[in-house]
Amino acid sequence: MEYPKITLIGVGLLGGSVGMAAKKIGLAGCVTGFVRRVKTIDECLAFGAVDEATQNLEEAVAGASLVIICTPVGEMKGIASQIKPYLAPAAVVTDVGSVKASVIQGVEPILSRFVGSHPLCGSEKTGVANASANLFEGATCAVTPTEQSDPEALDKVNGFWSALGGKLVNLTAEEHDDIVARTSHLPHVVASALVNAVLCKPCAGELDFLGTGFADTTRLASGSPTMWRDIALTNSVAIQKAIDDLQTELIGLKKVLAIKEADALENFFDKSKTSRDQWLEGEGKK
Amino acid sequence: MEYPKITLIGVGLLGGSVGMAAKKIGLAGCVTGFVRRVKTIDECLAFGAVDEATQNLEEAVAGASLVIICTPVGEMKGIASQIKPYLAPAAVVTDVGSVKASVIQGVEPILSRFVGSHPLCGSEKTGVANASANLFEGATCAVTPTEQSDPEALDKVNGFWSALGGKLVNLTAEEHDDIVARTSHLPHVVASALVNAVLCKPCAGELDFLGTGFADTTRLASGSPTMWRDIALTNSVAIQKAIDDLQTELIGLKKVLAIKEADALENFFDKSKTSRDQWLEGEGKK
Repeated sequence: MEYPKITLIGVGLLGGSVGMAAKKIGLAGCVTGFVRRVKTIDECLAFGAVDEATQNLEEAVAGASLVIICTPVGEMKGIASQIKPYLAPAAVVTDVGSVKASVIQGVEPILSRFVGSHPLCGSEKTGVANASANLFEGATCAVTPTEQSDPEALDKVNGFWSALGGKLVNLTAEEHDDIVARTSHLPHVVASALVNAVLCKPCAGELDFLGTGFADTTRLASGSPTMWRDIALTNSVAIQKAIDDLQTELIGLKKVLAIKEADALENFFDKSKTSRDQWLEGEGKK
Repeated sequence: MEYPKITLIGVGLLGGSVGMAAKKIGLAGCVTGFVRRVKTIDECLAFGAVDEATQNLEEAVAGASLVIICTPVGEMKGIASQIKPYLAPAAVVTDVGSVKASVIQGVEPILSRFVGSHPLCGSEKTGVANASANLFEGATCAVTPTEQSDPEALDKVNGFWSALGGKLVNLTAEEHDDIVARTSHLPHVVASALVNAVLCKPCAGELDFLGTGFADTTRLASGSPTMWRDIALTNSVAIQKAIDDLQTELIGLKKVLAIKEADALENFFDKSKTSRDQWLEGEGKK
């Protein structure tokens, strides 16, 4: 048993899954959850996400050797200030936020043994009811140390995600944020923009023509609006750049559509099919 | 048995599924498939998509009361000229093409008993191996008569898709093409553009960060490049307009990202989540 006590600040989809996974492999003597609402206490106990749950932050973090902040990224700095007085001196703190530079900027000056993390296994689903003990198996877990990071804290955080079955990637917060702007945030904003352009302004009879293709392409648009507002606010420059990259493709496509350039159109679709099929084949082999 | 002989020109995903569905409900005395390649003859017989298959176009359509052209849309006009000499006078002809105005413009002057169709149940998968007898159940089947359409031929085509379980929608070819540009062609070109912007120009380490969200958002990009080239060529004006609609959303989003307008960002994501969730709920109720 590596950790006498692990504390989750927030027990939703990700926090709940961390708790289930840690309990499943017997990583902690006790998994404690801090929650905002009374009804969540029963809920996260019922789903087996934690051993105990409380609305008292001091109680939640007292004696914990590892604290994982699983709130929306906009709340993380405030949480850091609130838990600081109650943390054991050796306690290591990490998070699961989808952006890293702004979280580190807010939390690191407050908590010296904080190292940022981002397990890439979110979903458009939310809440502990959708949590799963296997969520991290094979998932990329980004850990983003800085020059200030405590080496021992970094080892602990890396070891924790590895123990949960994650595929560790250490990189800087800036590298992380630029990458996820393209791989995760861009698909999300495109899905939302597609819904807003079509479903929110339907032409007559249009709804009969929407099927599984539209549903799949826009699946991400059903994610939490407040979570995505926070992501957009905290990674706005990189997301704008990613949107520019997509617009370059769309503008190029419009040009060849306008002149009905058959070869260029086939090349556009062929390039994307080939790349995607090769990527999925590679994923399957892993 | 309503049709002594139904002929499919092309036996891929859609043609094969039409054959399987017609055979399943005993709609035809014989389902005959015209194919280009020898090896497809055995394949479409093995999958139970047709009763007989041939590479001879005259043999294929002789005596057929219903002929369904299931080739790429770019080939349909040529097929119409080729089959015309061999068609029985009463034979009704339809197609399954994803665009309608250009197909009708090409085929209707050649075949007086032609009425265009578009069953909305394509897939990024291709070939008779992926065909299914249930493909049309509950699927919107657009039928696009013109002022020249033979009323009896129109009734036959409507009746055919209804018999296969489709949900009939009659509308003009122009209405159809404008609608599918937004509901089907736009999601497809966006999926392809997203792959081309990200997967074809990956930043260092980026591939580790691509997961199920990216895979789902880009699923359509694995469709047939030649089929989508033809769709893009034959519906280019409406697709350009649909891209403009999306770009309006993306430009608006970039503006609120640049000034970090929290409420506008939340509204952008909230609007799309609410619309999509309501739409899916409505679909589930049907």
